[in-house]
Amino acid sequence: MRFEIVARDGSSRARAGLLHTSCGIVETPAFMPVGTAGTVKGMTQAQLEELGVQILLANTYHLYLRPGYETIRDAGGLHSFMSWPRPILTDSGGFQVMSLKGLGRATEEGFRFRSHLDGSSHFLSPERTVEVQLALGADIIMALDECVEYPASHEAARRATKLTGRWARRAKEYYLNTVDSGAGAQSNGVPSPSSDSRLQTLGFCSDPPHPEPQVPALFGIVQGGTDRGLRGESAEEIVEIGFAGYAIGGLSVGEPKEETYSLAEFTAGLLPWERPRYLMGVGTPADLVECVSRGIDLFDCVLPTRNARNGCVFTSQGKLVVRNARYAREDVPLDPACQCAVCRRYSRGYIRHLFAAGEMLAAILATYHNLNFYLDTMRRIRQAIISGHLSKFLESVRG
Amino acid sequence: MRFEIVARDGSSRARAGLLHTSCGIVETPAFMPVGTAGTVKGMTQAQLEELGVQILLANTYHLYLRPGYETIRDAGGLHSFMSWPRPILTDSGGFQVMSLKGLGRATEEGFRFRSHLDGSSHFLSPERTVEVQLALGADIIMALDECVEYPASHEAARRATKLTGRWARRAKEYYLNTVDSGAGAQSNGVPSPSSDSRLQTLGFCSDPPHPEPQVPALFGIVQGGTDRGLRGESAEEIVEIGFAGYAIGGLSVGEPKEETYSLAEFTAGLLPWERPRYLMGVGTPADLVECVSRGIDLFDCVLPTRNARNGCVFTSQGKLVVRNARYAREDVPLDPACQCAVCRRYSRGYIRHLFAAGEMLAAILATYHNLNFYLDTMRRIRQAIISGHLSKFLESVRG
Repeated sequence: MRFEIVARDGSSRARAGLLHTSCGIVETPAFMPVGTAGTVKGMTQAQLEELGVQILLANTYHLYLRPGYETIRDAGGLHSFMSWPRPILTDSGGFQVMSLKGLGRATEEGFRFRSHLDGSSHFLSPERTVEVQLALGADIIMALDECVEYPASHEAARRATKLTGRWARRAKEYYLNTVDSGAGAQSNGVPSPSSDSRLQTLGFCSDPPHPEPQVPALFGIVQGGTDRGLRGESAEEIVEIGFAGYAIGGLSVGEPKEETYSLAEFTAGLLPWERPRYLMGVGTPADLVECVSRGIDLFDCVLPTRNARNGCVFTSQGKLVVRNARYAREDVPLDPACQCAVCRRYSRGYIRHLFAAGEMLAAILATYHNLNFYLDTMRRIRQAIISGHLSKFLESVRG
Repeated sequence: MRFEIVARDGSSRARAGLLHTSCGIVETPAFMPVGTAGTVKGMTQAQLEELGVQILLANTYHLYLRPGYETIRDAGGLHSFMSWPRPILTDSGGFQVMSLKGLGRATEEGFRFRSHLDGSSHFLSPERTVEVQLALGADIIMALDECVEYPASHEAARRATKLTGRWARRAKEYYLNTVDSGAGAQSNGVPSPSSDSRLQTLGFCSDPPHPEPQVPALFGIVQGGTDRGLRGESAEEIVEIGFAGYAIGGLSVGEPKEETYSLAEFTAGLLPWERPRYLMGVGTPADLVECVSRGIDLFDCVLPTRNARNGCVFTSQGKLVVRNARYAREDVPLDPACQCAVCRRYSRGYIRHLFAAGEMLAAILATYHNLNFYLDTMRRIRQAIISGHLSKFLESVRG
């Protein structure tokens, strides 16, 4: 994987880049829609392509439990299984294990947890999550970390941060042994997306074609809670181990927004300039703009898709709860300023009716619009960076 | 509305036609997907267009209760409300009233019923259903009828059939008074699809454009249960009243399949050759083929869409319950002989996973495939009629 910075903003830490992955190029800053179980809820893959999605996130925890990583590996990997030829990032599974309260606990060795589906017992170590993610065949995979809760005692934050460091080292070691063992990707059962004929037919994958099977890039995660000292130690350790990219974890977990921005900026400043930076689980459209200007390149969040299913859409005038009765007779689009396929075709009144009637199309149309809003926001930020107008763009967003 | 027969089969009663409606042409024989509440469950309108859907059915009962016909009328009619520029047929609402057991009862005047949503009391007369359907602005509207249950006593069947005849006369009279009163469609608040700018932008409606607002065509319904005598009396009466097209109601309600085919053929034979014939609520792919050969032009049924949501798909090799665990690792399309967008892209294993995980995309993909199977079946039947190979086609289907 190669990260190419094509422009930087003069008045902030923002940069525009190109992430060259084994499966295609991602223009950064980029937002990754969340496809938890190998599908972005309510969207067909064709709609995601139409929206211009360049990279998806999928959850290792969910796919590991169902349908099982062996099933996906045997189907040629996640690209082939879900018929998604563009880049995919998988998380480590650790966050889900810990956020499904009471199901898991961290030991030095890893996470022991019970399935939320059937109560069966499982174990996820730093080595194991790399093994599973290699089998899933994503383009970017994540090291196992322990996310610090908010609020947390200094001792708890320190303990989790140190554990994250030791796990990162083990993940890196296992990764190197596996992908460099001459074994490489393929003999370990790692699918090579470029060898899948269905994806080649679709004409997306491997552009340009790779003569050699590509190995996924491993990202490390910086923790440290809200303590700048711990953030600094964690960043130093993770960077010292060395990864293809760096994620900032443990933010947007309940701390005040100003703290999120400030810690993202502080932590990003400790990471190597030439590597991509991924702020996990963030956030609102305003968060994206603010954090790009603080040096972040990649984002993921369930907000656009989850809010859509609840009848809440993002517009140029702010949030709009389209399921409210007040929109029942409004013959205007969700966002009159939006040019997406939903806003060109459907009225608020119709979409409100679909929500009231419990129709699937309600969630489908709202999700499509919200994803377009997020992706379009990122495209506009990127264009502003490249054209040197980011400060003006920030002013207009901040109002 | 004009019905043009372009080919007839030499060895059966099948014919191929063109139904020229106020909103476009429908090639017959045709299958109408069911869009109960102004949406075909799980499909976007763009997907329906992509599938080649030429006419949709919407349920007056559901739309009358939610969002209310005034809301749809004020939005410019159902075409505009749901952004569907191609032809629409609305039913009378009578069948839903009676099939939601205990909610309604028929008197000479009409149906008095309670809403299944909130228990509120409503009244649907032959006049009222025409009024509501004119406000919805469909291209084909249906007279109110009373469907005979199966099995029914001769007396019950006779009573319902006679009532259906008297109601048909009242519906026709109200329809003529309304659309011919100089008032015409527009001053009665009937939306004219061709005046809707959003639909014109989409480039579908009014092809070729109509200088005058078009009025919907009214279809009459023949009842009579399984009694040929009553079927004959009903057909005679309904044809004597005179309608733009004729529906055969009260079939596929529990009687043996051979009886359905035989009664459809018997009744179709009593209807004027030059008018379209619509067999309501039928049926399986085999039913469509059999009934086309018995002289039917139009069909509607919830089977392809409802079965899809339950994980059951139609294929060239018969039905397949894709949600079954046995398909978890099958890397072949739902139907290897199918060329639809779903079969070109997704595997049984992936779709089975989506059903197991309760993901919306499961229903979306299965619905798309099933609708394609139905529409493609109709296209193949029509082509067989036109090319004079229907008997060969029937043989291949009957196996």
